[in-house]
Amino acid sequence: MIALPEPVAALVGALGQLPGIGPRSAERLALHLVQSESGQVQQLAEALLTARDRIQLCETCGALTEHQPCALCTDDRRDAATLCVVETAVDIINVEKSGAFKGRYHVLGGKISPLNGVDPEDLRIAELEGRLTGINEIILALGTDVEGDATSNYLAQRFTGKGNQGVTVTRLAHGLPAGSGLEYADDLTLTRALEGRRELQ
Amino acid sequence: MIALPEPVAALVGALGQLPGIGPRSAERLALHLVQSESGQVQQLAEALLTARDRIQLCETCGALTEHQPCALCTDDRRDAATLCVVETAVDIINVEKSGAFKGRYHVLGGKISPLNGVDPEDLRIAELEGRLTGINEIILALGTDVEGDATSNYLAQRFTGKGNQGVTVTRLAHGLPAGSGLEYADDLTLTRALEGRRELQ
Repeated sequence: MIALPEPVAALVGALGQLPGIGPRSAERLALHLVQSESGQVQQLAEALLTARDRIQLCETCGALTEHQPCALCTDDRRDAATLCVVETAVDIINVEKSGAFKGRYHVLGGKISPLNGVDPEDLRIAELEGRLTGINEIILALGTDVEGDATSNYLAQRFTGKGNQGVTVTRLAHGLPAGSGLEYADDLTLTRALEGRRELQ
Repeated sequence: MIALPEPVAALVGALGQLPGIGPRSAERLALHLVQSESGQVQQLAEALLTARDRIQLCETCGALTEHQPCALCTDDRRDAATLCVVETAVDIINVEKSGAFKGRYHVLGGKISPLNGVDPEDLRIAELEGRLTGINEIILALGTDVEGDATSNYLAQRFTGKGNQGVTVTRLAHGLPAGSGLEYADDLTLTRALEGRRELQ
């Protein structure tokens, strides 16, 4: 058995470190790439380096941005009195895609997880506290797993009624996902959908 | 809704051209990469360029190689009288992983597919013909779909009995895959497994 040529093996190793790319996918991608047009590979390598060089995290909210502060933080049309708290910079992009939120953001950088050694002081919670002046509402848009729930509860306890006027802390609704039938909903989702039922008017 | 920062969007575009990477995966990878260690991204970009620069196809057999001719073609311990014919350079790597073949290779570069405009002269069949001197056996290791079968039949007709001594043309056995039960075998696989049954001794 021959090994892969060394440059290909190195590329497989580098690709295999990406999330969601297993050893087989990494090999398939590497073998595709070494047989691609040279220009296409060059373009990919340049896109990688350019993106990594030019993208940073906004020092105010933690969003991905090319400039400080980011476009979200400087856009006057956005409601500066409402903060949406998310786990990661990528979550901002998902909320923005929905088009349903027109306030500002705050990225925590994770969720509280004592088992993994993530305590409140490891997250950008002090920075959130520093932004409370003039804020009316904090919308918690964290994951719905145990750690997301724990983090939401922690933040609600810590921030409810804080700030100049007193801050309202809200959480995204839990319930049935759009476009899905009851048969696909697990017990916990159904329980939460029942608990959160709303009167039709 | 904000768009992705432009360098990220460019990276998503470049990644989305890779096989098996859909728009969602491309976005997830791009967002991971722009938040990764700068050194790790640099390493990936360099691995890409190095691999693409240094890897070429062997002019004799068509394998991926850093040198001409490739290590497979120059290895005296391999049986120079047996040629394994495969569709792509990557197939060589798969056969080599099995460790069950110790001869030389010939990459066709595809399979005959009139519907897709691939005729015999578009493949490396003339090059195969030019290598027949001293060859005892051609093992056809092509895919088992309609086009692979058609290509195997075409090559068998064209090459059987050719060469100095007369060449034997064989084909990989078709049958049950290893480690699988009958319940997973489709009708055609079972039919071929029955046709190809062998006496136990």
